[in-house]
Amino acid sequence: MNAYQDLETRFRRLGVLGGVEQVLHWDRAVMMPPGGATARSDQLAELSLLEHDLMTAPEMADLLGAAAEGAGALSAWQYANLAEMQRLWRHATALPGDLVTALSHANSACEMIWREARGRNDFAAVVPALETVVTLVREKAQAKAAALDLGPYDALLDAYDPGMRRAEIDGIFADLRDFLPEMIGRVIERQAAGPALLPVTGAITVAAQRALGERIMAAIGFDTDFGRLDVSHHPFTAGVPDDVRITTRYKDDAFTESLMGVIHETGHALYERGLPEAWRWQPVGMARGMTIHESQSLLMEMQACRSPAFVAFAAPIMRETFKGTGPAWEIENLLRLYHKVDRTPIRVEADEVTYPAHILLRYDLETAMVAGDLAVVDLPGAWREGMRTLLGIEVADDKDGCMQDIHWYGGDFGYFPTYTLGALAAAQLFRAACDAETGVMEGIGQGDFTPLLTWLRTHVHEKGSLLGTNELLAEATGAPLGVAAFRAHIEARYLA
Amino acid sequence: MNAYQDLETRFRRLGVLGGVEQVLHWDRAVMMPPGGATARSDQLAELSLLEHDLMTAPEMADLLGAAAEGAGALSAWQYANLAEMQRLWRHATALPGDLVTALSHANSACEMIWREARGRNDFAAVVPALETVVTLVREKAQAKAAALDLGPYDALLDAYDPGMRRAEIDGIFADLRDFLPEMIGRVIERQAAGPALLPVTGAITVAAQRALGERIMAAIGFDTDFGRLDVSHHPFTAGVPDDVRITTRYKDDAFTESLMGVIHETGHALYERGLPEAWRWQPVGMARGMTIHESQSLLMEMQACRSPAFVAFAAPIMRETFKGTGPAWEIENLLRLYHKVDRTPIRVEADEVTYPAHILLRYDLETAMVAGDLAVVDLPGAWREGMRTLLGIEVADDKDGCMQDIHWYGGDFGYFPTYTLGALAAAQLFRAACDAETGVMEGIGQGDFTPLLTWLRTHVHEKGSLLGTNELLAEATGAPLGVAAFRAHIEARYLA
Repeated sequence: MNAYQDLETRFRRLGVLGGVEQVLHWDRAVMMPPGGATARSDQLAELSLLEHDLMTAPEMADLLGAAAEGAGALSAWQYANLAEMQRLWRHATALPGDLVTALSHANSACEMIWREARGRNDFAAVVPALETVVTLVREKAQAKAAALDLGPYDALLDAYDPGMRRAEIDGIFADLRDFLPEMIGRVIERQAAGPALLPVTGAITVAAQRALGERIMAAIGFDTDFGRLDVSHHPFTAGVPDDVRITTRYKDDAFTESLMGVIHETGHALYERGLPEAWRWQPVGMARGMTIHESQSLLMEMQACRSPAFVAFAAPIMRETFKGTGPAWEIENLLRLYHKVDRTPIRVEADEVTYPAHILLRYDLETAMVAGDLAVVDLPGAWREGMRTLLGIEVADDKDGCMQDIHWYGGDFGYFPTYTLGALAAAQLFRAACDAETGVMEGIGQGDFTPLLTWLRTHVHEKGSLLGTNELLAEATGAPLGVAAFRAHIEARYLA
Repeated sequence: MNAYQDLETRFRRLGVLGGVEQVLHWDRAVMMPPGGATARSDQLAELSLLEHDLMTAPEMADLLGAAAEGAGALSAWQYANLAEMQRLWRHATALPGDLVTALSHANSACEMIWREARGRNDFAAVVPALETVVTLVREKAQAKAAALDLGPYDALLDAYDPGMRRAEIDGIFADLRDFLPEMIGRVIERQAAGPALLPVTGAITVAAQRALGERIMAAIGFDTDFGRLDVSHHPFTAGVPDDVRITTRYKDDAFTESLMGVIHETGHALYERGLPEAWRWQPVGMARGMTIHESQSLLMEMQACRSPAFVAFAAPIMRETFKGTGPAWEIENLLRLYHKVDRTPIRVEADEVTYPAHILLRYDLETAMVAGDLAVVDLPGAWREGMRTLLGIEVADDKDGCMQDIHWYGGDFGYFPTYTLGALAAAQLFRAACDAETGVMEGIGQGDFTPLLTWLRTHVHEKGSLLGTNELLAEATGAPLGVAAFRAHIEARYLA
């Protein structure tokens, strides 16, 4: 067995253990009774330890070195696999053990304080814990920067979207800043001048919402022989390619939310399901990163399933499912419902037009915090200022301001930009699929996603981590990641 | 850290990983879509490998030796913990790696052939595979016998009921043989002469059965903050003490089966839940073995919940749940239903009176196979002969004869006797609880299991693996395992 083959054996074990963690996380969010929390934490900590031991075994450096020397004999997939192995190993070995432990404790402590303080709108209560988190995250960024030969923020970003760099995001986000605030204003003005949205009422029970979700996810291509749909507090996707678990949540009367939740997670699930089977459990066989992952969910939710063609297909099914009658259930009103644009202080309630503004704010603030240019105590002020500039909103309180998202309080810095990068990639990929594959929109209009899915399988899913985010997009769409397709999509849908 | 403490750290990791396996097994049986099978096998195999590596680490022999030398300083619990560690380590290291692999493959292959051949009543088709299994099991028994300084069958038995030996079972089963066949005849004769069993009909929906099961399991003491009830093909209990998962199955109209399934598994679950918290994840903190485990499920099912006191408590709830009316739903008829004794060729359908006869047969045959005194090809004949002698039944075919149980085909030899040893222990423990604790039967008659559960917690659950099976029974009941209490129970319930 040569060094590369030895590494494949080792990373296969890590990949399989990653699948075990997925089951434990899914179970905790969906099935586990509250009494199981401590045992589950112990189980996850033990798996982390075992994975860390496998990843940092003393012979790994030599194996990676020897494999790199013999890389000339590797296929393109093997070469990309080896590059991913090196990247993962550098991330894993970059941090001293005591920093990993300190971060884990600080993140847990801060998240717990945040959960409680948020309800009381008490930012001051979480300041000390968040200061500790930011201090440790900055140490982590420095240590990873040294190991990966990157800037500190880039080193954090690389864990969520490998190869993505701040310089590139800065350029893309500058393009967005150029037109988005003005465009938001125009869309809202236009909608205010148009016909009013009629309230949609009917027998919108949880059971009916579930039935609709199951019907639509099957139409999109989710095969329940290889996955499940369940309920959790926050919708998510977990599992392994042959057993993908998605969740949604149901509120009485809010079928648009549960349905779009199912469609969004189905997009994530189809990506996992379509990953290259020949590279199962290897790093190169895994999803490319959060930007491409989010592009797959947003492509289904925003591009495909809020389209007039899909709403025209789904409208009679909705009327039948919810016993809906009258003009509120006509396609035109349902489209107004699915295309409503509003300035809201809350990111997770935002529509696709205003959403990037929320991300621009978070990106500005987290890059400043990681650089040491923004102190935690100054966060609420900077938040208010940013919301005013980017969205024209006066934030009422910190609860619905800088305390609304769990990310920073749980130690996640470098994650936020991938939401909007994913939205841009979704627009770009959907445009390319429609241009390249005949019958994509026609299929969607008949509830047949085969043409779209076939294109996505070939150009995105089956690529695994063979290519970088930008390489993948360039091969699939003819251009690296940019704002053009997104801007054109917004103009066509909201301003045409 | 001294050797004993080091061992505690290592065995804690093994205990935690055991909990991970429980989640994976539960999920596979209850939640997993069919497509997940291969990934799940990979996950379980990886965990086995990690556990094997932890258990057989080169320094383990020295650590166990050093801890044994310093054992004078250990508490009784620590000492018992060390003894369990030694036992587990000897079991794990007794077998050469290639035998473990060969057994695993042979068991999987034979089980797969059996699943298919059983439907066709084709014993000949499974003979070669079962011969391979028996050959390898005999090798395993020899290897373990040498490592544990035991007889071959005892070495197998020790994995299911540590410390239990064939010599003792032979004596107990000889006592059973003395009276059981004749007693079965008398019970059946007496029931035939009594009033006929009226068929119980009503609105016995699955939802109503589930509601009844949930109500009764809560009354017995199952706390859903620390566990769940779900559905699976075969009822089972899995999980960890603070998160015990039980299952049942529902057939339209067969509420007695689903309810007694829930009660049986609740007995198992309360044992797990009551294990000593101070010794969580340590070998001494685990359940004592299959005999005591089965005693806890059968104590609830057979002793407590088929008692006239409990049926009198449950009858109005049943009538209310299933909208049952008329004489069939009177306590007397429900008792006839729960006490019906019949000669059936199928073990899992047998009542508590005839059940031990099924186990005597399996015990005779599996000890003979392990000793090399019974060839696989002669199994069907020996089975028929045994069923004739022990139960007076002519077996129609191998499907409902020697092919009915998965155990041997999956390589499990030494497990069967614990079912009946558990039934005997259940009778003995229930008798002792009623004698020792005031109000046990009165409580059960009011649906209050607190007095019974308090006694079981103190005398069984909280003991973990501190004592051997017989020591535990002797301390709790004043006598080692025997047939007297069981015999008295059968006579009182069926022949008084």
